Amino acid sequence: MHSTRLDLFDNSDFYPGSTLKRLLWALLSGLFFQNWIPWPSQLKSTLLRIFGAQIGEGLILKPRVTIKYPWKLRIRDHVWIGENVWIDNLAEISIGSHVCISQGALLLCGNHDFKKSTFDLITRPIDLEDGVWIGAKCVVGPGVTCQSHSVLSLGSVATKDLEAWTVYQGNPATAKKPRSQNL
Amino acid sequence: MHSTRLDLFDNSDFYPGSTLKRLLWALLSGLFFQNWIPWPSQLKSTLLRIFGAQIGEGLILKPRVTIKYPWKLRIRDHVWIGENVWIDNLAEISIGSHVCISQGALLLCGNHDFKKSTFDLITRPIDLEDGVWIGAKCVVGPGVTCQSHSVLSLGSVATKDLEAWTVYQGNPATAKKPRSQNL
Amino acid sequence: MHSTRLDLFDNSDFYPGSTLKRLLWALLSGLFFQNWIPWPSQLKSTLLRIFGAQIGEGLILKPRVTIKYPWKLRIRDHVWIGENVWIDNLAEISIGSHVCISQGALLLCGNHDFKKSTFDLITRPIDLEDGVWIGAKCVVGPGVTCQSHSVLSLGSVATKDLEAWTVYQGNPATAKKPRSQNL
Repeated sequence: MHSTRLDLFDNSDFYPGSTLKRLLWALLSGLFFQNWIPWPSQLKSTLLRIFGAQIGEGLILKPRVTIKYPWKLRIRDHVWIGENVWIDNLAEISIGSHVCISQGALLLCGNHDFKKSTFDLITRPIDLEDGVWIGAKCVVGPGVTCQSHSVLSLGSVATKDLEAWTVYQGNPATAKKPRSQNL
Repeated sequence: MHSTRLDLFDNSDFYPGSTLKRLLWALLSGLFFQNWIPWPSQLKSTLLRIFGAQIGEGLILKPRVTIKYPWKLRIRDHVWIGENVWIDNLAEISIGSHVCISQGALLLCGNHDFKKSTFDLITRPIDLEDGVWIGAKCVVGPGVTCQSHSVLSLGSVATKDLEAWTVYQGNPATAKKPRSQNL
Repeated sequence: MHSTRLDLFDNSDFYPGSTLKRLLWALLSGLFFQNWIPWPSQLKSTLLRIFGAQIGEGLILKPRVTIKYPWKLRIRDHVWIGENVWIDNLAEISIGSHVCISQGALLLCGNHDFKKSTFDLITRPIDLEDGVWIGAKCVVGPGVTCQSHSVLSLGSVATKDLEAWTVYQGNPATAKKPRSQNL
């Protein structure tokens, strides 16, 4: 075990896209996504596609949404992304059909190896399968798969995979009941 | 149990006010409430009243606050609403006198019936009685009543009613001690 | 036990700096820190120093950061402050070398005496020692010292001191394992 040395951090092998593309996206994100202006979801879907996102039909995308890299985002049909959602996709995020990500939620792909002095960057994909509901103010951590129709309850933190058709709650989130029952 | 079908979602029976009123409010909210500019609380109270909120005396309202529908908001006297608070009042929110809602808290009235394929919208009111303190980064869920002088501690999530003069903590929040004792 | 009387609240003995200084800082904070524009960290470090912050070398400061009072902030060398971090330093916050504060975290120095009718303001300093990692969406409460190389996991809430080289999780956060092991 050695002391952390952030001055020795080296992520030169992580290439998230050209600087120009990232700056241009930051600008468009600031103008069309991150503020309160209710730009139409279709306009925003088009912008995301231009920057490399794969987007199906019927995406609804509320204001004040932050998406790190559209070119690492795949969304199928009839997905809702709520107000103030933050998709911090340093790695690929894949969102199935009929998924709802409620307001204030965070999908987080980045981690650090805290056992190394160099605090190496670790990025892992997130996969939300069909019919998943990520509740308001939830956090989904790096590498997590939320299986088909799993539910993460209000304000919970998923650090491990969620099983299909199951409702999770807490920090860290644990299975509470099948989706067929009331909490 | 059937797969979620967000394309079949129908909230046509939910009428939150005319489109014109909502757009106008979104504009004023963006200009006077949701940014960092320290507009005087009295100006903001006046704007809220014009849009139908019932506001008592002495409201203090910090910058970066989001209020969904002023016409579904009742606030009595000497209430504090902290920086970056989010009042997502799809249903009525009623706030008693001498209530403090600290920075970053979320009051959330919206839910979905996740046992129905159509993911029906469910909205339920929130009631914060006199003397309640909602701590920083807390979440209060749909239908919750926080009884007189209850306290929700830092970062906690209230999914059920809080009893009077009692301190709650955790996700989901549970009763920890009477308000008369230190945590 | 008496009812809360926010109208009797009196923090006249709390002097956080002149009104002019605070307004000027609010303006610069709004223009250079709290929005999405990726201003260089060096520019922001310089602005913080002009307003009285003690900043070492190599500070990296992402966009959308809120810092309450630069004149109550001390940061040593090679520190990272992530996107959307909120440093609500009503009291002194001291950050050691090689500390990482990840995106969306909140450092909170303010509290209230909820056993007094007058709801007195209590401010207490926060101390993050060398090599500490505060995970994304975490909250560190008033008076907390995070000892050398302690780790606060994703979305956790620290209400008490963290011991050195130990990983904490939950709300309230509890010790889970030494930093040398995987969670």
